Amino acid sequence: MLIVAERINSSRKAINEAVLSGDAGIIRHEAKIQADAGADFVDVNAGTFMGEELERLKWIVEVVQDTVTTPLCIDSPDAEVIGGILPLVEKPPMVNSITLEPSRLDAILPLAAEHGARVIALCQSPEGLAETADRKVRMAHELVEKAEQAGMPQDFLYVDPLVYPVATDPLSAVATLDAIAAIKKEIPGVHTICGLTNVSHGVPERKLFNRTFLVAAIVRGLDSAILDPTDKKLFGAMKAALALMGEDEYCLEFIEAYREGRIG
Amino acid sequence: MLIVAERINSSRKAINEAVLSGDAGIIRHEAKIQADAGADFVDVNAGTFMGEELERLKWIVEVVQDTVTTPLCIDSPDAEVIGGILPLVEKPPMVNSITLEPSRLDAILPLAAEHGARVIALCQSPEGLAETADRKVRMAHELVEKAEQAGMPQDFLYVDPLVYPVATDPLSAVATLDAIAAIKKEIPGVHTICGLTNVSHGVPERKLFNRTFLVAAIVRGLDSAILDPTDKKLFGAMKAALALMGEDEYCLEFIEAYREGRIG
Repeated sequence: MLIVAERINSSRKAINEAVLSGDAGIIRHEAKIQADAGADFVDVNAGTFMGEELERLKWIVEVVQDTVTTPLCIDSPDAEVIGGILPLVEKPPMVNSITLEPSRLDAILPLAAEHGARVIALCQSPEGLAETADRKVRMAHELVEKAEQAGMPQDFLYVDPLVYPVATDPLSAVATLDAIAAIKKEIPGVHTICGLTNVSHGVPERKLFNRTFLVAAIVRGLDSAILDPTDKKLFGAMKAALALMGEDEYCLEFIEAYREGRIG
Repeated sequence: MLIVAERINSSRKAINEAVLSGDAGIIRHEAKIQADAGADFVDVNAGTFMGEELERLKWIVEVVQDTVTTPLCIDSPDAEVIGGILPLVEKPPMVNSITLEPSRLDAILPLAAEHGARVIALCQSPEGLAETADRKVRMAHELVEKAEQAGMPQDFLYVDPLVYPVATDPLSAVATLDAIAAIKKEIPGVHTICGLTNVSHGVPERKLFNRTFLVAAIVRGLDSAILDPTDKKLFGAMKAALALMGEDEYCLEFIEAYREGRIG
């Protein structure tokens, strides 16, 4: 299971304030706890700083790279921002994200390919969101085709079928889970990834919903996720699901994580 | 989701002591909290009382039926015990359980059919346990055939593919989950059911493992479970999983359970 750790995002108040005041200590701490908790990539997002996103993200990237050796996931819909950050990264990064919208696809995909970056690709097109499993899978095929044309190895692509709130769209999670299973079957060389928070808008106990959805997605074949690895309940549910799915022989990793106090 | 509530089992110390001392209050309390928590059947088991199982179970049945209107699940491998209890039940019960072993199959199945009882049928035969999904599914077909021969409606049968500890058999949960999906597909008229506690023997945080397995099983099509509905974390994970699988439109049941304080 590949983990993209999501905590360094300027939409979080503490991060926003740390960036504004130049408090590197908070960013260092967030980078370190996520690396220690098993992050494979540390996501960095400065999207709330309209007009100064690139400058703010450069500072974050500098601080994170000075703190941990975990590679970065550059999180922006803006090709200029991504293009400005890619030359600064020390390890092959991930880019979050492209869609089938030409403004993102045509501008970001070649940049990522050129810099040897992995890419998160959302099942979203100019015609709108993909609400059914069929449409999600068709878009996944299109994204894979575009990545191939850009010269990117298939296993550098992390397709996110997207999920919408079940409180307003009762079959949204089923569609996403079916899409995950179908993509795994039809395009086994590509990865699937998913954010977890969308699914629970409008219900109480959102974290319970999010981690239940993560378990469901792992059962259907999800191999990567964007999440907070320091959330011990979420991390525990993930490790238990992986053990149940035969991906942790004799539960050794689960038991180790438990002993290290990482499971709540 | 059909819930067989498992708390009234003499292998639990409090139940054992209540039965020995004739403390009906404890049994009443256990019956009531499980009925309130959404039990569809209240399991009653006096298996630890060797030689006096029938007599002890009669007392339990009397107390439970005097307390709640929820139907009973008569839990014994002994045809004589089941035969002694069936005439006493006030509502069509469930019988827990038969296997393909002739001693249980040939003695218990006709009794259950005669009394209009539903039956839990374990994928276990005289040749031993079914460890692979294929063997589990083959046994499910055999059990369905036997039930048909006994004149039982197919939807009165609750097939339990059984699960073994993943700490010693890393692919056991996968085999069970695959069997649940295959049985649902190949024999859609039959129910699947599962106990949850076996899977977690030998790992820490057993309850986390058990509820993660329940979520996984629901994702693959499980429609009934033997569990403790008063366990708020387990109940919450189950309700969230059902909402995610499109079985709780607009999350109304989840939200109601949350408001009633049944989700932890």
